[in-house]
Amino acid sequence: MSTGPGSGVSELLLLGPGPSNPYPEASAGLARPVLGHLDPEFLDLYQAVGDQLRAVFRTANRLTLPVSGTGSSGMEACLVSLLEPGETAIVGVNGYFGERLCEVARRAGAEVVRVEGEWGRPLDPERLLEAQRANAGARLLAVVHAETSTGVRNEVAPLRALQDTDTLFVLDTVTSLGGIPVEVDIWGVDAAYSATQKCLGAVSGLAPITFSDRAVARMVGRSAERPICSFYLDVGLLEGYVYEPHRYHHTASSVLVSALHAGLGRLLDEGLPAVHDRHRRIGELLQSSLPALGFGLVAPDGHRLPQLTTARLPSGVDDAKTRRRLRDEYGIEVGGGLGPFAGQAWRIGLMGHNARQRSIATLLGALRSLLG
Amino acid sequence: MSTGPGSGVSELLLLGPGPSNPYPEASAGLARPVLGHLDPEFLDLYQAVGDQLRAVFRTANRLTLPVSGTGSSGMEACLVSLLEPGETAIVGVNGYFGERLCEVARRAGAEVVRVEGEWGRPLDPERLLEAQRANAGARLLAVVHAETSTGVRNEVAPLRALQDTDTLFVLDTVTSLGGIPVEVDIWGVDAAYSATQKCLGAVSGLAPITFSDRAVARMVGRSAERPICSFYLDVGLLEGYVYEPHRYHHTASSVLVSALHAGLGRLLDEGLPAVHDRHRRIGELLQSSLPALGFGLVAPDGHRLPQLTTARLPSGVDDAKTRRRLRDEYGIEVGGGLGPFAGQAWRIGLMGHNARQRSIATLLGALRSLLG
Repeated sequence: MSTGPGSGVSELLLLGPGPSNPYPEASAGLARPVLGHLDPEFLDLYQAVGDQLRAVFRTANRLTLPVSGTGSSGMEACLVSLLEPGETAIVGVNGYFGERLCEVARRAGAEVVRVEGEWGRPLDPERLLEAQRANAGARLLAVVHAETSTGVRNEVAPLRALQDTDTLFVLDTVTSLGGIPVEVDIWGVDAAYSATQKCLGAVSGLAPITFSDRAVARMVGRSAERPICSFYLDVGLLEGYVYEPHRYHHTASSVLVSALHAGLGRLLDEGLPAVHDRHRRIGELLQSSLPALGFGLVAPDGHRLPQLTTARLPSGVDDAKTRRRLRDEYGIEVGGGLGPFAGQAWRIGLMGHNARQRSIATLLGALRSLLG
Repeated sequence: MSTGPGSGVSELLLLGPGPSNPYPEASAGLARPVLGHLDPEFLDLYQAVGDQLRAVFRTANRLTLPVSGTGSSGMEACLVSLLEPGETAIVGVNGYFGERLCEVARRAGAEVVRVEGEWGRPLDPERLLEAQRANAGARLLAVVHAETSTGVRNEVAPLRALQDTDTLFVLDTVTSLGGIPVEVDIWGVDAAYSATQKCLGAVSGLAPITFSDRAVARMVGRSAERPICSFYLDVGLLEGYVYEPHRYHHTASSVLVSALHAGLGRLLDEGLPAVHDRHRRIGELLQSSLPALGFGLVAPDGHRLPQLTTARLPSGVDDAKTRRRLRDEYGIEVGGGLGPFAGQAWRIGLMGHNARQRSIATLLGALRSLLG
């Protein structure tokens, strides 16, 4: 399907762990004229996107904005802005992105307390709360809501109990936001980050974040002797750029913000409950269809993400070769397994614009031909 | 001209310090279908962009790639990847971006030795070399080639002498690359970074960087106890993603890379010498026309950037009000002054696609109406 670098003729159906194909509205947003990073119209657009993100995160937090980097930059912005060297970070680890939280916290100079769980199984929130009781001085507790590496949903609502402690609750919503309910205010989340190329239906390059008043106070109250090690990802500086007094910080990309604005507009026009319901129905349909083709579902019932399914390959099926044929002959991308699932399982995403029946029909049709 | 956030009808002529209007080819690149961040076609595209960037940076450095963030993220990636806490960084400071280099180095834990010069005047490279002799153990010396805050070109070729020392030479080429000659290998630059929305003629969101073998060796030889404080901007991890073994690091935006590839293709088709000549002619034309309108040129002859002119306002002209009218009535953006030039001067960019006679005719026509 390829005719060389940059020729851009390959139009793939992206059913991996993200990026997903953007909503047509988001693609149209990308094509809007470029605006200067301090242009009043662009700054208005930022406010409008902030309002949309508050609706999607389900929060009243003023400090809600897209960081100019991918989802990983959002993770790092939250951790480096909230942690000082030597402080303790408690991290739930039952997949690749829990591991990454540990690594980012370690690099920020934190002492990391790991609460480990098996990959492919949900974490017990009670064990996270226990770890906090054993480390009551911990600055924050971070956990991944939807583990992109395994397709598992962690139960995070009980972590609201952290509001009664001095430990901030940091939540990774990279794969959950827009796909399954996320309730920042109801769950007492102090800092959450996400990405734009998955269930939000835009393109990668921005990381929406939101900070509670408690998180903002923490950031403002940092010791002046130990500045945030990143200038680019200093959430306080980002706030001063996106909101009044609009102090120049970096040259944000108006076309990425336009694409996000348009994608979120499409999502909110459909309505958050309807979008969640669509993801749920489509995910269940895929998950009920895969066993007949010999695939096994990794995540347990009740903790299985509809938007991202990790499916163990039928015996005798070669991972790399089959994915390559799926891509080259059918124009479909699915993701390979990570960690213990490398070579053993696929990660199949049905996110945003791709959370529809046609995606499943296309994938299953191709799989029946390839494996049948 | 605006009809509300996101309506996207304002099509501005961007004659500020960047973003500039992208080449039509770059806009078309942005509209290409999205590819997965590990798709073979996308990884091929990265290699092609690496080749193009080597041609533009004038280097044979293998480690040449676009960081997934704006120009500021490129600055930070270079500094945090090369500096360990407690090491010394010598920084030339004759404008806003020299100041920012100090701030980023300070946050990385470095001892900063400032070599100060007046804003609007070039730095004497001999003073930078003297500072290195006085701080022979300094890890790096960083300077801005083209000060975006003042329109001044610093003389940096003599810093090749740093190759005979243990101090790495870091060069900010954010506003210079593609506008005036940059010679990474001939000048002995160890690390350079740039941005895509200025003279390269693409859109913001990526920061091209290049590292010499000496810089790579330095990064590889870092103490394991003091990891690079950033995971997102760790140049070693970026190298392992963009080049073999293509280890997943972040979800790079294929559309931004496609836009950059297309913009660089347009630039290299015209040819680097021809592009530099075009910027030179257009810049001189603007600079020879401004005094008749009462503007004064800030940067001295011989160190004046053609692609970015800082012009002192005619007496009696209100900065903010006039810029607002220029924008709202004529659809033209110019930049305000920074530091000592705030409210006193404008920054007028003629970069990439906008480095052409029509831009000047449009601007001067509007100014004659507004100020006449």
